Amino acid sequence: MDIAILGTGVVGRTLGSALVRAGHVVRMGSRSASHPAAADWAAQAGAGASHGTFADAAEGADMVLNCTGGMASLEALQSVGAARLGGRVLVDVANPLDFSRGMPPSLSVCNTDSLGEQIQRAFPEARVVKALNTVNADVMVNPALVSGDHHLFICGNDGAAKEQVAGLLTTSLGWRPPQIVDLGDITAARATEMLLPLWIRVMQTIGSPHFGFRVSPPASLPDSTA
Amino acid sequence: MDIAILGTGVVGRTLGSALVRAGHVVRMGSRSASHPAAADWAAQAGAGASHGTFADAAEGADMVLNCTGGMASLEALQSVGAARLGGRVLVDVANPLDFSRGMPPSLSVCNTDSLGEQIQRAFPEARVVKALNTVNADVMVNPALVSGDHHLFICGNDGAAKEQVAGLLTTSLGWRPPQIVDLGDITAARATEMLLPLWIRVMQTIGSPHFGFRVSPPASLPDSTA
Repeated sequence: MDIAILGTGVVGRTLGSALVRAGHVVRMGSRSASHPAAADWAAQAGAGASHGTFADAAEGADMVLNCTGGMASLEALQSVGAARLGGRVLVDVANPLDFSRGMPPSLSVCNTDSLGEQIQRAFPEARVVKALNTVNADVMVNPALVSGDHHLFICGNDGAAKEQVAGLLTTSLGWRPPQIVDLGDITAARATEMLLPLWIRVMQTIGSPHFGFRVSPPASLPDSTA
Repeated sequence: MDIAILGTGVVGRTLGSALVRAGHVVRMGSRSASHPAAADWAAQAGAGASHGTFADAAEGADMVLNCTGGMASLEALQSVGAARLGGRVLVDVANPLDFSRGMPPSLSVCNTDSLGEQIQRAFPEARVVKALNTVNADVMVNPALVSGDHHLFICGNDGAAKEQVAGLLTTSLGWRPPQIVDLGDITAARATEMLLPLWIRVMQTIGSPHFGFRVSPPASLPDSTA
């Protein structure tokens, strides 16, 4: 597959490298055509890796992964432009974390709206799927870093787009199909983004970012989720 | 133990009945001294159950459980009064869910504050412990309704108060000590209250309120949480 990674941070580099290893063609996009972190990444990630502007990366991609910081995501996507995003599967991995007042961060949007919804509203022709935003980058590409069962929550308005994303997660990133829980339409992005404060507290409590959340099912139901 | 339950809803009645069965003296408090739901509950819950005003219930109690609706909690606690709450363990079970715009509810406070923190600020002498707000009432009193491991998150500023609450959970409500995860001070109430939107989406997705969330630990760490 031809995949655009928007963002040069840990999440973008980790996902990009794993997708190159899985055999995909990956272009990393950033603000400038010659971003040092993107150039370093492309040099090290091997054949299939390249870099350019946000727009360069998204041009002709089968799937676009938004791995920018949540406070900068809308601006980055505006520089890609609605025309390049139209009809495209856009995986929103970002969280709207605001670190401007230090730790712990607050969310710049939540409760009655979410970053996922803002992106879908700003680009109504894009097929937005919120995914991967509830786990650390190392876990995104290696779910077995977590002991025992854990779940990945996804949501979006386009069922076929969600299936494509679930396919990438399972064939290229090591997730098993029963680990992926579809929460419905893009308004569920409120729920998964609002999990971040708990994620941060748990990380501080156990001293590691390599954990996952599992939904333990009712004893009265067959355990179909693990 | 002498326990006050504030609130006559499903949460208050379910917790109250379980605590009477466990041998505690339980007084259910409500706005009026003769609330029909509280009177019915007291008649059916058996010896050890009684009812009265919020203030009647809290008077002399070893522990006070706030089971009122989150939008009404501060007013209910004001009617108990700071003098009766001073030095007392106050378990805040409520969530600040605002149903005024229908389903799904929003939170009336979140992100940079929480109901748990509002209560602690309003009653600085009370020993507030946020607990039980991330599971359905049936699960609160019967954790085994959920298949497999799941966790209960608690937080608060007073370590001894948290130990007392953990003691009640384990000796009287069926929770095992490793299921109880202490997230630290009362600001963690933001995290557990903000889990409610995900709780609601999961409930809608699996079609049952009888589930729990489990933190699946890093594979690199011994599993000390389950």
